[in-house]
Amino acid sequence: MRPDASRVAWRGKLIAVTVEQWDGREREIVEHPGAVAIVAVDRDGRIAFIRQLREATRLRLLELPAGTREPGEGPLETAKRELHEECGFTGGEWTRLGGFWTTPGFTREYMDVFLAEGVDAGAAAPEPDEELELVLVHRDEIRLADLEDTKSIAGLALYFGR
Amino acid sequence: MRPDASRVAWRGKLIAVTVEQWDGREREIVEHPGAVAIVAVDRDGRIAFIRQLREATRLRLLELPAGTREPGEGPLETAKRELHEECGFTGGEWTRLGGFWTTPGFTREYMDVFLAEGVDAGAAAPEPDEELELVLVHRDEIRLADLEDTKSIAGLALYFGR
Repeated sequence: MRPDASRVAWRGKLIAVTVEQWDGREREIVEHPGAVAIVAVDRDGRIAFIRQLREATRLRLLELPAGTREPGEGPLETAKRELHEECGFTGGEWTRLGGFWTTPGFTREYMDVFLAEGVDAGAAAPEPDEELELVLVHRDEIRLADLEDTKSIAGLALYFGR
Repeated sequence: MRPDASRVAWRGKLIAVTVEQWDGREREIVEHPGAVAIVAVDRDGRIAFIRQLREATRLRLLELPAGTREPGEGPLETAKRELHEECGFTGGEWTRLGGFWTTPGFTREYMDVFLAEGVDAGAAAPEPDEELELVLVHRDEIRLADLEDTKSIAGLALYFGR
């Protein structure tokens, strides 16, 4: 299953846009290296969220920790690195909860979701351009309908539905 | 909350990319008119899914009916139009289940999710470049972890969690 023709229409630092021809249909596709999200639960049953400015939305959103895969990095490695950088958490028992295409109408981004249980707190090490606030919410107090982004709702639905 | 500078870096037919400067941080943002997804339930408790080729993924995915807002169209109008075009369904009792930012790290796409209960079957009217297969699955037989894209998992989580 391949396009008849494909050309890179724009290339940025994080994303690029490819325009493909499929049997007369044109498709604009955002290239993306793939991503991960993490449901991290501490020993008291609290789940880690990150509050941060999402420039695209003009809002500070509360989301599951997540991040983009670096070249050569497997999803579990990305997940452990991001959880440490964003939340300062290390250790824990790791399980893959599942994965999903984030917006298959216009990107190739695939996101793997991991569960990390019994993580140990520590100092976060965010990248210089990230202003992150760690928020811990007990799993009994989470209402999916109050969350603001798709991966946080879907990732937690996989966790609660195990 | 506004960027210091903003320029359109690329403009396609469906999407465009804006590059914004925020206090020294550069952000690549995919512009998008917004979208809707629909949890449509017939009188037998079956939920409508669409199977279609998603060129970006090179796969035929099974997803909730969904679509992009046309200029001047409110989310509920889009939802009713898309459910008719993709599935042939009309009528039903409509409720908003919620909404979410689909991938706030790099797009402005916001998706509203509607519930349509007791819809009436009819002839679908897909756009000429869409090859769509309607699949009805009873709500008791749906396992969220088997679904392949984020909005279908999140949208159904909102439905099951009402």
